[in-house]
Amino acid sequence: MRRIVTISREFGSGGRELGKRLADRMGIAYYDNEIVTAIARKSGFAQSYVQGVMEKRIQSYPIHYGRTLSLYALPNNENQTSIFAAQHEILHELAEKEDCVIVGRCADVILEEFKPFNVFVYADMMSKVQRCRLRAPEGEHFSDKELEKKIRQVDSGRAKYRRLFSPVKWGSREAYHLCVNTSGIPVKNLVEAVYDYVQIWFEHRSEKEVKK
Amino acid sequence: MRRIVTISREFGSGGRELGKRLADRMGIAYYDNEIVTAIARKSGFAQSYVQGVMEKRIQSYPIHYGRTLSLYALPNNENQTSIFAAQHEILHELAEKEDCVIVGRCADVILEEFKPFNVFVYADMMSKVQRCRLRAPEGEHFSDKELEKKIRQVDSGRAKYRRLFSPVKWGSREAYHLCVNTSGIPVKNLVEAVYDYVQIWFEHRSEKEVKK
Repeated sequence: MRRIVTISREFGSGGRELGKRLADRMGIAYYDNEIVTAIARKSGFAQSYVQGVMEKRIQSYPIHYGRTLSLYALPNNENQTSIFAAQHEILHELAEKEDCVIVGRCADVILEEFKPFNVFVYADMMSKVQRCRLRAPEGEHFSDKELEKKIRQVDSGRAKYRRLFSPVKWGSREAYHLCVNTSGIPVKNLVEAVYDYVQIWFEHRSEKEVKK
Repeated sequence: MRRIVTISREFGSGGRELGKRLADRMGIAYYDNEIVTAIARKSGFAQSYVQGVMEKRIQSYPIHYGRTLSLYALPNNENQTSIFAAQHEILHELAEKEDCVIVGRCADVILEEFKPFNVFVYADMMSKVQRCRLRAPEGEHFSDKELEKKIRQVDSGRAKYRRLFSPVKWGSREAYHLCVNTSGIPVKNLVEAVYDYVQIWFEHRSEKEVKK
């Protein structure tokens, strides 16, 4: 049975790093920005436009209907609808193709039928600011306040984007199997324990499937 | 350095079982109802009265002040204040005495200075109802609806009680290092992975302390 791990994460919490390291440890594929590229290719829009819609910098109307993606969108919502449809299709293609770790893109909701293991990664603001600073490109000089503002903005966009797909709030514990706080501890230290947890969970799921 | 693990949990989620198994695995003490007994002894109240106050079945006024227990309570709040003071004292005595796992009693807040590892255990309603049914004493016959109501009531009491000690909401992820969803998986399967996680976290904390 397919093993899909989805990672949702607060900006700066190290969720992407955890996803990458976990995929390596599990020996399975890892998908992150590749998804945006693929959506852009499939929908015919520029990558930056797709990214903008997915981060809710570009406005659209809520079109979720229960947990199902509704394609009956308003006409002026057509661009976004194409992007959502492409996102839906690409995530399904990836999940059907191989075991993988997928970061973001509401994969936990969109791939629900694959029974993914859903992780939420978070941290306190100080840790997130520190991590952003460590990973900043050379020449970037934001104050702590500016970084905090950016972190809140990105997370607010992610929360809004998720509302298009699910009635369960972004970051709300019931949407995830495990919520991991990375405050004050390097992500690389946590990978082995998260790996153990995920393995145990998939093993149990397989046993249940066999019994059915 | 002292290793304290606190377990906060939704009623019926298996948090207590996880705490007990984790304490056994770590080879350290486990405290749960013993704390209520000790508080009753120290404060001079009946155990059932202490339990009532701690589950917020018996009303009291909020007396937290920031994160510090305030002893400047209203006179008609005297009983509760004695109980809070005894709770504070007993939790500190336990933490000073030995490494331990403590279930409930707002130990994550009250023992903050000991830098405990704080776990929140939760599950979906169906799993919680099933678990309550499995653990019900012989002769107890509640309908699913009645069990759901009981679960909500107990959790609401826990949330209210926590508000007396902390501005951070009960169950809000930022209060915990790890949030564990036990839906559809036996707690005994999860213990080893949670144990690994806790060990890694304490090891990292020790390394940081040594470097200081």
